[in-house]
Amino acid sequence: MKIVETISAIREEVRKLKAEGRSIGLVPTMGFLHEGHLSLIEAARAKHDVVVVSIFVNPLQFGPNEDFERYPRDLDRDERLARNSGVDILFCPPVEEMYPGETAMTIHVTKGVDVLCGASRPGHFDGVATVVMKLFQLTAPDEAFFGQKDAQQVAVIINMVRTFNVPVNIVSCPTVREEDGLAKSSRNVYLTEQERQEASFLYQALRKAAERAQAGEHDRERLLQYLTGLLEGGSGTIDYVEALSYPALERQEKLGGRIILAVAYHYTKARLIDNIIIELDREEA
Amino acid sequence: MKIVETISAIREEVRKLKAEGRSIGLVPTMGFLHEGHLSLIEAARAKHDVVVVSIFVNPLQFGPNEDFERYPRDLDRDERLARNSGVDILFCPPVEEMYPGETAMTIHVTKGVDVLCGASRPGHFDGVATVVMKLFQLTAPDEAFFGQKDAQQVAVIINMVRTFNVPVNIVSCPTVREEDGLAKSSRNVYLTEQERQEASFLYQALRKAAERAQAGEHDRERLLQYLTGLLEGGSGTIDYVEALSYPALERQEKLGGRIILAVAYHYTKARLIDNIIIELDREEA
Repeated sequence: MKIVETISAIREEVRKLKAEGRSIGLVPTMGFLHEGHLSLIEAARAKHDVVVVSIFVNPLQFGPNEDFERYPRDLDRDERLARNSGVDILFCPPVEEMYPGETAMTIHVTKGVDVLCGASRPGHFDGVATVVMKLFQLTAPDEAFFGQKDAQQVAVIINMVRTFNVPVNIVSCPTVREEDGLAKSSRNVYLTEQERQEASFLYQALRKAAERAQAGEHDRERLLQYLTGLLEGGSGTIDYVEALSYPALERQEKLGGRIILAVAYHYTKARLIDNIIIELDREEA
Repeated sequence: MKIVETISAIREEVRKLKAEGRSIGLVPTMGFLHEGHLSLIEAARAKHDVVVVSIFVNPLQFGPNEDFERYPRDLDRDERLARNSGVDILFCPPVEEMYPGETAMTIHVTKGVDVLCGASRPGHFDGVATVVMKLFQLTAPDEAFFGQKDAQQVAVIINMVRTFNVPVNIVSCPTVREEDGLAKSSRNVYLTEQERQEASFLYQALRKAAERAQAGEHDRERLLQYLTGLLEGGSGTIDYVEALSYPALERQEKLGGRIILAVAYHYTKARLIDNIIIELDREEA
């Protein structure tokens, strides 16, 4: 596994790979790798000659009151995990390499960001889109792999690639779950024992709501009321429940086509998110 | 010469050229080609195996009160000129091909746009950066050729390529001039005979100011006063005179390094722009 830290070095690696006609799969991460990331690496390995994993904690996507400085980092462990997973190139540039001067421009996302987690994080997805554009230009992947857990992020990146005609195919990989259905997350360790036992009910509720939608309940308000009811018995509090078109993330009173059902839920020390994406028949008006 | 109108077709052409290892020079235009464009095509031909010219009148860079609908178009003539100039691929997509739906995001330029022509055209360079990013992603050029006449546009695109690490080299080509020094422009036809005789004084004034700067006058205010004085005798009115770092387009009280001297000047029916880029020694503080 090659460890690459500079822009000139990653360009040179990519140039050689392209000249050899080898396909590249990119897994962009902020490091502190867990099973979710490893499943993305595995998916990339299965389809591409070369797997590039980027590790970059992107300051641009953290708000002024968010935890950029405290975000967990463990590059030694990440290197070991990446090597053991068959990664070919680990691209981990320092901040000065990615943002050498004052930013002259950003990508400004105008659609699909005033909902879900974006509603409480203004500018967050501008930062995500900007750094992912940079990573795509630097590594020229044929495909890039993201986890469906961060569904809004995937939606923004799908929309970015379409908006700017970036020649990269976006692969959204299924959320990795515990045996009881709870979505894996580094934040699950912050749950109390009782909360951990309860927490799988988020996914169960999403599945029940998805079944009800697929059985014909296409009225957004009623479906969200049902989902709210399912979550009412929990010991935490609902941050949001939502049903939107995917990946456009638009509200429709009558749900139809590809739909995301999503929930964010507050426990004492952890905010959990989860979602399901389903296909619904479009009703005649 | 191949005429290509769809995104899928241009991607296929580019894919084939890349597989053959051929270098691509791109000349992005809004059509209605004139000698300025032809000099860019010539520069691209001299350096690259394949020359792609794009013709696209980009609605995103026109303000609500600007002349998108009335912007001059003559595709038959452009085709003929391009063919005679040895262009290999003419990419002229319809608007629906470039903007198939509502825009989900744009590039938002935050630096170097509140000066020069950008001061009176809010959002203009967002539109320019966005469409040029799209054209770069679609045609994957090794180099792209722009006229230095539109110096602020070149600066924004240089900054865009740096910000997003786009693997394209930007070539800024010298302004094509009439014998008396007047910068060639489709707008020169709107000058009265008397205005046309006078108009070369813009370039003469820029050259005199450049000489004075190079002779040691690095005080921005004094240099601009001198330039204003040189233009005072004309029959039109000054829109702006400016001296900025290039390509950052930042104001410095003490000029040093690469500098653009620029002027915009109103005649009865035409607004003319011109500029000179010079290198000045940096003074010790």
